[in-house]
Amino acid sequence: MDKSSLEELLQLVKEEKIDIDDAVTKLIDLPYKDMGFANIDSHRELRVGYPEVIYCGGKTVEQVKKIFEFMASKESNILGTRATEEMYEEVRKICPEAEYNTLGRTITVKKKEMHSTDSYIAIVAAGTSDLPVVEEAYETAKIFGNKVEKIVDVGVAGIHRLFNRLDLIRGAKVVIVVAGMEGALASVIGGLVDKPIIGVPTSVGYGTNFGGVSALLCMLNSCSSGLSVVNIDNGFGAAYQASMINKL
Amino acid sequence: MDKSSLEELLQLVKEEKIDIDDAVTKLIDLPYKDMGFANIDSHRELRVGYPEVIYCGGKTVEQVKKIFEFMASKESNILGTRATEEMYEEVRKICPEAEYNTLGRTITVKKKEMHSTDSYIAIVAAGTSDLPVVEEAYETAKIFGNKVEKIVDVGVAGIHRLFNRLDLIRGAKVVIVVAGMEGALASVIGGLVDKPIIGVPTSVGYGTNFGGVSALLCMLNSCSSGLSVVNIDNGFGAAYQASMINKL
Amino acid sequence: MDKSSLEELLQLVKEEKIDIDDAVTKLIDLPYKDMGFANIDSHRELRVGYPEVIYCGGKTVEQVKKIFEFMASKESNILGTRATEEMYEEVRKICPEAEYNTLGRTITVKKKEMHSTDSYIAIVAAGTSDLPVVEEAYETAKIFGNKVEKIVDVGVAGIHRLFNRLDLIRGAKVVIVVAGMEGALASVIGGLVDKPIIGVPTSVGYGTNFGGVSALLCMLNSCSSGLSVVNIDNGFGAAYQASMINKL
Amino acid sequence: MDKSSLEELLQLVKEEKIDIDDAVTKLIDLPYKDMGFANIDSHRELRVGYPEVIYCGGKTVEQVKKIFEFMASKESNILGTRATEEMYEEVRKICPEAEYNTLGRTITVKKKEMHSTDSYIAIVAAGTSDLPVVEEAYETAKIFGNKVEKIVDVGVAGIHRLFNRLDLIRGAKVVIVVAGMEGALASVIGGLVDKPIIGVPTSVGYGTNFGGVSALLCMLNSCSSGLSVVNIDNGFGAAYQASMINKL
Amino acid sequence: MDKSSLEELLQLVKEEKIDIDDAVTKLIDLPYKDMGFANIDSHRELRVGYPEVIYCGGKTVEQVKKIFEFMASKESNILGTRATEEMYEEVRKICPEAEYNTLGRTITVKKKEMHSTDSYIAIVAAGTSDLPVVEEAYETAKIFGNKVEKIVDVGVAGIHRLFNRLDLIRGAKVVIVVAGMEGALASVIGGLVDKPIIGVPTSVGYGTNFGGVSALLCMLNSCSSGLSVVNIDNGFGAAYQASMINKL
Amino acid sequence: MDKSSLEELLQLVKEEKIDIDDAVTKLIDLPYKDMGFANIDSHRELRVGYPEVIYCGGKTVEQVKKIFEFMASKESNILGTRATEEMYEEVRKICPEAEYNTLGRTITVKKKEMHSTDSYIAIVAAGTSDLPVVEEAYETAKIFGNKVEKIVDVGVAGIHRLFNRLDLIRGAKVVIVVAGMEGALASVIGGLVDKPIIGVPTSVGYGTNFGGVSALLCMLNSCSSGLSVVNIDNGFGAAYQASMINKL
Amino acid sequence: MDKSSLEELLQLVKEEKIDIDDAVTKLIDLPYKDMGFANIDSHRELRVGYPEVIYCGGKTVEQVKKIFEFMASKESNILGTRATEEMYEEVRKICPEAEYNTLGRTITVKKKEMHSTDSYIAIVAAGTSDLPVVEEAYETAKIFGNKVEKIVDVGVAGIHRLFNRLDLIRGAKVVIVVAGMEGALASVIGGLVDKPIIGVPTSVGYGTNFGGVSALLCMLNSCSSGLSVVNIDNGFGAAYQASMINKL
Amino acid sequence: MDKSSLEELLQLVKEEKIDIDDAVTKLIDLPYKDMGFANIDSHRELRVGYPEVIYCGGKTVEQVKKIFEFMASKESNILGTRATEEMYEEVRKICPEAEYNTLGRTITVKKKEMHSTDSYIAIVAAGTSDLPVVEEAYETAKIFGNKVEKIVDVGVAGIHRLFNRLDLIRGAKVVIVVAGMEGALASVIGGLVDKPIIGVPTSVGYGTNFGGVSALLCMLNSCSSGLSVVNIDNGFGAAYQASMINKL
Repeated sequence: MDKSSLEELLQLVKEEKIDIDDAVTKLIDLPYKDMGFANIDSHRELRVGYPEVIYCGGKTVEQVKKIFEFMASKESNILGTRATEEMYEEVRKICPEAEYNTLGRTITVKKKEMHSTDSYIAIVAAGTSDLPVVEEAYETAKIFGNKVEKIVDVGVAGIHRLFNRLDLIRGAKVVIVVAGMEGALASVIGGLVDKPIIGVPTSVGYGTNFGGVSALLCMLNSCSSGLSVVNIDNGFGAAYQASMINKL
Repeated sequence: MDKSSLEELLQLVKEEKIDIDDAVTKLIDLPYKDMGFANIDSHRELRVGYPEVIYCGGKTVEQVKKIFEFMASKESNILGTRATEEMYEEVRKICPEAEYNTLGRTITVKKKEMHSTDSYIAIVAAGTSDLPVVEEAYETAKIFGNKVEKIVDVGVAGIHRLFNRLDLIRGAKVVIVVAGMEGALASVIGGLVDKPIIGVPTSVGYGTNFGGVSALLCMLNSCSSGLSVVNIDNGFGAAYQASMINKL
Repeated sequence: MDKSSLEELLQLVKEEKIDIDDAVTKLIDLPYKDMGFANIDSHRELRVGYPEVIYCGGKTVEQVKKIFEFMASKESNILGTRATEEMYEEVRKICPEAEYNTLGRTITVKKKEMHSTDSYIAIVAAGTSDLPVVEEAYETAKIFGNKVEKIVDVGVAGIHRLFNRLDLIRGAKVVIVVAGMEGALASVIGGLVDKPIIGVPTSVGYGTNFGGVSALLCMLNSCSSGLSVVNIDNGFGAAYQASMINKL
Repeated sequence: MDKSSLEELLQLVKEEKIDIDDAVTKLIDLPYKDMGFANIDSHRELRVGYPEVIYCGGKTVEQVKKIFEFMASKESNILGTRATEEMYEEVRKICPEAEYNTLGRTITVKKKEMHSTDSYIAIVAAGTSDLPVVEEAYETAKIFGNKVEKIVDVGVAGIHRLFNRLDLIRGAKVVIVVAGMEGALASVIGGLVDKPIIGVPTSVGYGTNFGGVSALLCMLNSCSSGLSVVNIDNGFGAAYQASMINKL
Repeated sequence: MDKSSLEELLQLVKEEKIDIDDAVTKLIDLPYKDMGFANIDSHRELRVGYPEVIYCGGKTVEQVKKIFEFMASKESNILGTRATEEMYEEVRKICPEAEYNTLGRTITVKKKEMHSTDSYIAIVAAGTSDLPVVEEAYETAKIFGNKVEKIVDVGVAGIHRLFNRLDLIRGAKVVIVVAGMEGALASVIGGLVDKPIIGVPTSVGYGTNFGGVSALLCMLNSCSSGLSVVNIDNGFGAAYQASMINKL
Repeated sequence: MDKSSLEELLQLVKEEKIDIDDAVTKLIDLPYKDMGFANIDSHRELRVGYPEVIYCGGKTVEQVKKIFEFMASKESNILGTRATEEMYEEVRKICPEAEYNTLGRTITVKKKEMHSTDSYIAIVAAGTSDLPVVEEAYETAKIFGNKVEKIVDVGVAGIHRLFNRLDLIRGAKVVIVVAGMEGALASVIGGLVDKPIIGVPTSVGYGTNFGGVSALLCMLNSCSSGLSVVNIDNGFGAAYQASMINKL
Repeated sequence: MDKSSLEELLQLVKEEKIDIDDAVTKLIDLPYKDMGFANIDSHRELRVGYPEVIYCGGKTVEQVKKIFEFMASKESNILGTRATEEMYEEVRKICPEAEYNTLGRTITVKKKEMHSTDSYIAIVAAGTSDLPVVEEAYETAKIFGNKVEKIVDVGVAGIHRLFNRLDLIRGAKVVIVVAGMEGALASVIGGLVDKPIIGVPTSVGYGTNFGGVSALLCMLNSCSSGLSVVNIDNGFGAAYQASMINKL
Repeated sequence: MDKSSLEELLQLVKEEKIDIDDAVTKLIDLPYKDMGFANIDSHRELRVGYPEVIYCGGKTVEQVKKIFEFMASKESNILGTRATEEMYEEVRKICPEAEYNTLGRTITVKKKEMHSTDSYIAIVAAGTSDLPVVEEAYETAKIFGNKVEKIVDVGVAGIHRLFNRLDLIRGAKVVIVVAGMEGALASVIGGLVDKPIIGVPTSVGYGTNFGGVSALLCMLNSCSSGLSVVNIDNGFGAAYQASMINKL
């Protein structure tokens, strides 16, 4: 509630067009639904034009099902991330239009078409093993209404593969780079492309990869500028911010 | 060198308007200056509209001086980061218009005015101790031609200070959040502002702060979306990307 | 055995009202039961007014069963933490009044009513995925005789959810904040509530969460005062201390 | 601003006893002083009965001096932590009643007497090298108006030293345990004393002490209950929370 | 594409023996096969004389199968590392000559004989538990056309076992040392053998082994010279470089 | 082979009582059995009076079986550590007198009685969950011919349990302290007992226990003297060294 | 105070040969001196036959001086570790017989001759840079009354240097191995010598040495048995335990 | 001493051409000089053709001087690494031909010319700040008799600088890649050059660089093959191994 709506509300109070009790309620009654185990913010789409998002990790199948059930009664699009196939099976029972991306572990429910952007987000990935993160980013960017181009398996071990796709990458408004192991791809693209780049380190690798830490550190210490980083394997977060930038 | 310029060059070769030797040279002779200890990319501003940037950390005073000397012969603006006062004293001798930001440890040389953007970057900082990073980001954003608003000392320990400045933050096109200790400010702003946010964890703190790791992890694990992160204390990197976004 | 009881005992010795052998026994014979694999302190409730507590993690089902069997022969209330469903099945056979909290993984045996406090402990949790830790803390606080209020899913990503519950949180005598991911909720509440706060970082998250380390560091480095921290996922420990404070 | 004061304010608006502009101002104008580099919350003492606290770490001498200068114009008591001797010298010039605790690195300004509590906080320390943290906690607890007992050099390597002081420790309402190296003292006291214990790991030690991490981990993993922990060397934070508990 | 082939190509353009379009294609069309989820570099053997290598970790069985299927249509030898038995079963269906090394987790397809070197690579291992890494290195070195000698279970706990095999080790052109736990074998051999040594730390061990970190650090900090290190358990990488050296 | 036996051998050579070839063989032919995947040192017992020891971790069931088979043909006692139940089932087939300690995961084969020491090793453990490590240490110490006393569940959370057993601990020639979580028991005993103490940190705990690191660091940083430490969960190693000391 | 002395004391009480007050005093009055900042245990030598030990790290020069002053009034030998030259200069003023070992940073005061053992402790060091730790261990072992042999610069990079000294090492009753960098020397000696070995990792090295962590991990993970470890650079601790073992 | 020289020696014994005492001496008397604090291996050059190497880190100026003094009496070339300017000043007094490389911190003494190789080692560095490591590697490679090419400041942030130098890099027999920050240069070169590559991570950077760990992890996890790694900032070690490979 910003300053101007506060003024309006107070004006209503002054003009006695609204009871003090009601005004107090308006001031404190926020638009969420208390489900006992979760507070669902169902007005979010209205405010910011985004679909509802459910992080399914750490939730029980039952909890996920109930949240989808409540949301599906609204007309919002819905995105569930880190969802298991078992969750999807339950959600589908109450929400038949739900779709599951097996690699990306997302459940998407499209109640209405999103207008897609003209400019596009490029999602560039180092290797085939990074595909789960690519898919999570892809599904997120799509349901948020973005045009997306995927460029995969262009890691620095065979850098000529990357160069052949440079035009497509350079044409994007914002670039997501998904890379595990040493994560050098983000630095290399950062040195070649003058667009904002969001790096997603992945947990692909073994040994001193330490579950993605090597790629994360590589990206954080990049000598290329214009690069910022999200959590390991966080395809959703990268696409969320990329969508914000793409729509500027 | 992109596809179309390649076609043009080859057309020149075909029409024998250019020698093969010259074409080879063009294809391999890149516009940098080899100074023995450094390869300076003096055409960068022409290509991407940015000033020259020198990371002075780990360089000797003599090396920094020589690089400024070479650059100052061009008509580019120049930004030196992580510069010591001693470096500045030497640079000033050969480049009298150089200015030094003591807190931010930057040397700036403005040879020509940058056109400033209408939209602005908000730089929000949790505490007074974060000011050195704020200043590095500020100088970077300014010399890259951005309008900037600084909002400092609004950490979550007294969250009402933040709320009073929310309108100014929400009015920005992109937000840089600078915070040490637990870095929670980035998450809180991420939950309140629907703009791309770039978090800069700082090394402010002690003990389990581990030189900024606590703030970094806090930001990387934020449950707020729309937030990406740069290296600890990397005010320059945040401002560089924010400038890219602000100019979209 | 404190100084005054030592004097009394020595007085008895002097007056020859007690044998030296008996006095030696009294001085060394401490009130625990040696079960071969465990020393059970069955007089603890008498001394400090608390129920018996069994940490079931790392114990075999057989060991857990035997400890409950011994304890159940006393009239103490019993709390088992980190108990598996299989353990509960075995315990129920010998102790039919035992109850199991599936999310919180606790077994509770209530042999007698605890007098409940007037003041209450607030248990505040950032997200639905933190519920297992909330439940462990809740069961602990209840069987220790405390009035408890649970406020869940009020993480900083949607900070208005928190503000609507502030009065309830402020009314508590002591506050437990349970949060994973970046754990910023503890800092924010610390900046809003002038009560002792015990932070419980949880292992909810992925990647650089490092099994709860990000939330732990966030809480340890909080710029809010009045906040102390227990081990990751240690709902029991937080509730134990909160109970001590609530009963002051 | 809580619900009842909101009702009062709205009542005033309704009765036209206050202008809308003034009401808006009241609703957004928070009681802090913007000093450019810091927002000072000068009404804090009124609200929560505490002195002003300045964390001097990472601030310049000039900044610290200016903040003391502003605060000293009020009638609040003031506590500065992590202050250098140089800072104290400057502060003393404008605030002659300021005192400096060399070991504890605190500056205290007592404008008025605090009423002291009847119950006391026990500050127990393992070794002589932990004294700086003890002193920071002591100065904090004193200026917050608490009675304090210090018990030092009672580490577990000579556990009989501890036992002789147990009565004094057990008599406290809340216990702060300050320990470096392996930090086992907190666990041992936790097993002997049924009072809330706040552990302060210190950076005393070398090698695998890792700047206090060994003591921190020891305390977080304590098998004794009733123990929570603050940041390494954070004597202030421990005393702040202890004061809250002592005054319940 | 090196300088001389660039000159040749340009000469062809000049002499109009090749269309500009074709030349552009040649310059940008790199010899890889885009399979949607992977870019396969099928000309690699021609260029560098090595077999195709597939890192199967993190790939689905289906993806691995498809890549083998495509490759098997060429006449290259193929090496798949980190392959599961399930992957092998699928690959064998389409490529009956494929062989599986159960310990080493490699799939090898030998379409043609490699000429073997006269000089040999010695693979020395500390213990029986290191055999999986030894086998991965062995299969790699063999399919790259090297003569190999394996010397296993000669760890420093019984150093006389090592001394008896020193002549064989010293006879090699390059030595791979595979060791887990404390990894001291690499240092000891480094002090006894004047040949390039490539250390492979393994994840064999428990506790403070930290998944191979202890062996890695031991090797990186070796006071013996002539030793470099690859990632934990990376038998393939060690053999790849050893092969390069052996063929010099 | 020490100096005197070298002199003897050379004397034999000089007197031509032994062929040069035979002498060379003696000098290089060490008494181990090469099994392809393992070099078994079957003369070890003769030399140092200890049984054969097999670390079964990371070995296949087949490998373990073959090593036992070879050893069982000698008259040595055998100890296998980190053995699975499946390994035991296989070993029992070829070695019916083999015994398995389920908690300690050891296989022992006693071909002949060891003479037991008069002095004893005390194995003291903090909690019931530490029993697996206690049992590994116990089986090791027994088969090495030591008298052993076990004192379990005497952790510092109830320190009176420890004091009642102090006489038994003090009577030992060397003490093994097994403790997880914060591992403070080792420090406390170190402050109470003037005997060499070997600490075994265990991986018992959760969260910041980090698989035993908290207990390890606690023990390494102990302010008590006379304490050294072995790897996490390494009951075998502690007992091996304790046996060496007990037999001095 | 053990069981039998407790019986004696109680007997005296019963026979009224001692007042109850005196008995209480005896039971609680422990033989230490409270100096305000330190509790000095001046009867320690009587009880355990050791000199007084002062850990000077983290103490002020003034504090160290006062402790030496108090101790020097007794007839005990004194050992100060981690002492600076400045501390020594102050101590020498009040205690002229004090000696300083510059490398080892120890102050020793010998008031009376210690009887030296027949058996000896071997202190073996990998390199010249490890000498400070060697000297700390040496001074400790000497003042505790042990015969000591030093064998330095026998690291594994030139393993023949070690072999030439093996007889001397094998003749010791207990061996201290001091090594930095990769610390492999401890493992190698562990494989060659059947004596208890105490490893002291040192902070000698750089980069991934991490202040001694590499050597520590190497020693903790040693595949040689009979080896236990103390804190990084803890020459004192190793010598203390070695002395205990040497005197068995 | 290898098998054949052993046979020869024994033959001499048999033929009584050598005394048993002398033979024993030969067998145990190794060619090093015991200086009390160091064992200098002065015959090393004869055996392996390398100069003497002194690691000066952690040694006192006096110790370094004495070692140079002893060595300079031989006719060997000498290399001192990690030497301070103060050490050099002392060494120069006794060894006037000594030279100091300020950036590389090496002292070199050339008593005789080394024959230089025809093939060369390429030392490639990412940035100007990496020069100290480059210089250490360069001085090492030179005094070991190698031809060397240095290619500096070709980091991936401006990858065209690298491509222009590729021919020179590809012409080397072995490549050393020196890089700090994210260390991606090693991966990129690994993908472009089919020569053995030795990566040297440097401590250049800040924040999450963690003293070179980010570059180290990047190199260890490289998806490019043919790359092995030495310790952070270990220019000497890389050049030592590169020299071994270059001379094959």
